[in-house]
Amino acid sequence: MNLIDKIDVIEDFPKEGISFKDITTLLKDKEAFKEAVRALAEPLKNEKIDYIIAPEARGFVLGCPVAYELGIGFIPIRKKGKLPRETICVSYDKEYGSDELYMHKYDLNPGDRVAIIDDLLATGGTIKATEELVKKSGAKVVKIGFLIELTELKGREKLDSDVYSIVQYEL
Amino acid sequence: MNLIDKIDVIEDFPKEGISFKDITTLLKDKEAFKEAVRALAEPLKNEKIDYIIAPEARGFVLGCPVAYELGIGFIPIRKKGKLPRETICVSYDKEYGSDELYMHKYDLNPGDRVAIIDDLLATGGTIKATEELVKKSGAKVVKIGFLIELTELKGREKLDSDVYSIVQYEL
Repeated sequence: MNLIDKIDVIEDFPKEGISFKDITTLLKDKEAFKEAVRALAEPLKNEKIDYIIAPEARGFVLGCPVAYELGIGFIPIRKKGKLPRETICVSYDKEYGSDELYMHKYDLNPGDRVAIIDDLLATGGTIKATEELVKKSGAKVVKIGFLIELTELKGREKLDSDVYSIVQYEL
Repeated sequence: MNLIDKIDVIEDFPKEGISFKDITTLLKDKEAFKEAVRALAEPLKNEKIDYIIAPEARGFVLGCPVAYELGIGFIPIRKKGKLPRETICVSYDKEYGSDELYMHKYDLNPGDRVAIIDDLLATGGTIKATEELVKKSGAKVVKIGFLIELTELKGREKLDSDVYSIVQYEL
């Protein structure tokens, strides 16, 4: 199965000039969904990974089944005000202004080995912030996996960890 | 394993008087996460279910692995501005003001059979809106499953579909 055929490209969403990659068509297709989770889990099977980390909300859609497939735990990265215990925070730049991501301060410990999963790598701002949260905790990011990578935006150059992606578009 | 032991109760979050049920401790624990997904999937195994439906963001955390475990597709319910194609919308009351939930208009068809999954049933506003979105599309909600139910809030009385929950608290 070629997963790229299961992803819908919608022009000018959320605004003019953006070719939005709609993965809801893939998620709805039981064979494509299974294949996407397996493809994302595969490069992690021979690593010693303790946890999957993913940012809300689309990161959860693939990150949680990947953790389940690997039989490991899941740790969420969230927006402000969502996590009830003491958190650590990283700010990152967005197209307009900036945003913040949070992780529970004691979810990870030095020596933990994690993989980060998200749906799409564009310029990489969200995942760079996620990578920094993991590093702040003293844990190691072993790999970062994306279902989709927009290669021309060179997001992977911003990231320090080993990156893989299942489907590539130029933009 | 008693899953209730894996859930952390945090008093006065997000505000005074609320006993917040923190499932991040359960998600982090690989055995508890696996057990929670299996327990949520079990009552659906003998039903003919085409899709799992879940509202963002915490609904994705359990809904997506349940869909994966059952080998079926997943359809997300989202906040405003997140879905790129034509949507249907339901408004629902919150403690202060109201909110809206959206589903892609053509994701479901009359005759489709779905189950809704979410982390927690409190007063039931979000899930009532989700149930209405599915009904608007002509599909049938076969069951609604929650990891946690706050029984004293009687949320299940608001819902028309068959409800199950894995862990119960009074409040």
